[in-house]
Amino acid sequence: MKKKLIILGASGNIGTQVLDTLEQHENEFEIVGMSVGDRAGVLEEYLETHTLQYACLKHYDDYERISAQYPDTQFFYGDEGLQKIAAIKCNLVINALQGFVGAFPTLKAIEAGNNIAIANKESLVGAGQIIMEAARKHNVKIIPIDSEHSAIFQCLQGNDKKDVRRIIITASGGSFRRYSRKDLEYVTLEEALKHPSWKMSPKITIDSATMMNKGFEVIEAHVLFDIPYEKIETIMHWESVVHSFVEYNDHSLLAQMGVSDMRIPIQYSLTYPDRLPNRSEALDLEKLGSLHFEKLDYERFPLMKLAYSCGKKGGNMPAVLNGANEKAVEMFIMGKCKFLDIERLIFRAVEAAEFIPEPTLEQIIESDRWAQNFVRKSLGGKA
Amino acid sequence: MKKKLIILGASGNIGTQVLDTLEQHENEFEIVGMSVGDRAGVLEEYLETHTLQYACLKHYDDYERISAQYPDTQFFYGDEGLQKIAAIKCNLVINALQGFVGAFPTLKAIEAGNNIAIANKESLVGAGQIIMEAARKHNVKIIPIDSEHSAIFQCLQGNDKKDVRRIIITASGGSFRRYSRKDLEYVTLEEALKHPSWKMSPKITIDSATMMNKGFEVIEAHVLFDIPYEKIETIMHWESVVHSFVEYNDHSLLAQMGVSDMRIPIQYSLTYPDRLPNRSEALDLEKLGSLHFEKLDYERFPLMKLAYSCGKKGGNMPAVLNGANEKAVEMFIMGKCKFLDIERLIFRAVEAAEFIPEPTLEQIIESDRWAQNFVRKSLGGKA
Repeated sequence: MKKKLIILGASGNIGTQVLDTLEQHENEFEIVGMSVGDRAGVLEEYLETHTLQYACLKHYDDYERISAQYPDTQFFYGDEGLQKIAAIKCNLVINALQGFVGAFPTLKAIEAGNNIAIANKESLVGAGQIIMEAARKHNVKIIPIDSEHSAIFQCLQGNDKKDVRRIIITASGGSFRRYSRKDLEYVTLEEALKHPSWKMSPKITIDSATMMNKGFEVIEAHVLFDIPYEKIETIMHWESVVHSFVEYNDHSLLAQMGVSDMRIPIQYSLTYPDRLPNRSEALDLEKLGSLHFEKLDYERFPLMKLAYSCGKKGGNMPAVLNGANEKAVEMFIMGKCKFLDIERLIFRAVEAAEFIPEPTLEQIIESDRWAQNFVRKSLGGKA
Repeated sequence: MKKKLIILGASGNIGTQVLDTLEQHENEFEIVGMSVGDRAGVLEEYLETHTLQYACLKHYDDYERISAQYPDTQFFYGDEGLQKIAAIKCNLVINALQGFVGAFPTLKAIEAGNNIAIANKESLVGAGQIIMEAARKHNVKIIPIDSEHSAIFQCLQGNDKKDVRRIIITASGGSFRRYSRKDLEYVTLEEALKHPSWKMSPKITIDSATMMNKGFEVIEAHVLFDIPYEKIETIMHWESVVHSFVEYNDHSLLAQMGVSDMRIPIQYSLTYPDRLPNRSEALDLEKLGSLHFEKLDYERFPLMKLAYSCGKKGGNMPAVLNGANEKAVEMFIMGKCKFLDIERLIFRAVEAAEFIPEPTLEQIIESDRWAQNFVRKSLGGKA
């Protein structure tokens, strides 16, 4: 029987790769629903050659126009629609949404008992504890899509988490791997967008250059795998070939490796615990010749230290960190601040934030908004 | 409840490391029996501070002398005794015997329904099909101890063998990694015994230098994991840090890594599927800095090609290969032939051997003896 899927964020960077992956496995999977946000064209194109039971759009006018043409499909719209489509019973909801907004449909999917493949980093960072608690309560599996967390997840298979000594998350080092702190003062947006190994959205590429992305991954790893921060480490590995390591208490170190192609972890999240062939290339170790590892310098990348301290503090602090980063990166991309201002703005927001030890989801959202506003105001309040 | 163990070959290189490993885990394991071959002293020393239900010695006079002193221990002796002690019902038999003789107690242990942790390479190479068939019939687990096969075994956990695309066995390259074929003509025994990364017995160190050991590992991997030879590859990796890889059909590559310390795979074979802390060191990737991989040249190491062809041909050919190698290496260690004569003698034996497609265990033993005799006769029949 085919695995029934609902894809949230099917028109985004991850979503389109999910569709590309599923194209070769039509006998194994059935897409019963998808959301495409404001990119109605992606949905229209899909519906020309496929049928869908459910679809969700961001805007009401798109909803009205397209739903009139496809009477066999049940349409939804807006944030509420997103939550409704996520709650339709299926085998797996793929959450490829961007931003904190992804937390709501995640929770709705969990309450409906749907397993979730998750690429929505922000919701795990900001509301990870709430999401994972709900998942435990409803006995729902949360399967990571991010390459590092998929690597960890793969290295944990057939093992017991109690035997984990360390998780070691690899970091390519981003666009400015070889830049000193002084060099960083003058880097441009264009330079920041040149990632050495992965093709990603501008937001995540900047997050890689500031190392905030790696900091978020540390928080996500803590949340996803319920491993204390003391056991989560990072290592610089510029080839981006080892996607992460799990070391066990017997000093056996497992690694998951592969080319930098998101379709590998994406597909594993869909086929888990099985595997299927895919369109990615195999890693050619002989051609590659060598792999390099070096210390990730937290003085050089102070957002790493901040991520650990916000993660350990817990409560609403990861949400503050995420909100401040989201706005600061937006400002940098818009040319409204310098590269190192991203860090400075985030540090200031975290310092100024009110700490809530056990926040509700509403308080987490409020913290996210507060941090975004704080950063905007710090820059003169124009964005 | 403690896991009850019987250790065959407790006085050898692997056996003593098994004892060292168990010393720290007395709450988890109970050694109910052991065999020590002709090293009676090892047994006497052990019995001074421990009790044993069963013990086995090679020679009758040792048996007579020691059994008189320990009335609470049941003693066995000789090959027959080895088979008897292996068949005593326990949770795990550790077969750390050297040489083809290990096949018999392995089969007896299987027939008794005992799971087996196996370090006895020769029996897997020569009689692997018979052993694995018996294990399947009696629903017995065969857990590898060899570092490469333990790595493969670990990378297979939580996965389905049908999804395996390739197994890649790493090779340090042995003592003569950088020597040309011409250089090899004049190497000495002393040079051959200097292995770059592992401390092993002279026999296995020579087998590493000729790459026969890696060829045997290919055959063992085929036997242990029921993976066709076409899917088993090798790669040169002189750091001996990645102990082997499993690549899945989605191009996800899992690796098991660690320092070159046999206590890690030994302990995993005892604790599987759990893990326990041990005395080995953790791998320090930052200190190591880099890992290297290069093609293993089968022209440079022709015994690799021969191992594949004997493995694929099957029947008694792996036993011929093993027997010829055993005697040829013995001759080299005794100074009776040159290093490259090892290869030449093995090739000649394989060429001259009569092929038996579906041999009985008796025919396999006969093939082993025939090959040893062939090599001895080739050198003038003096050993």
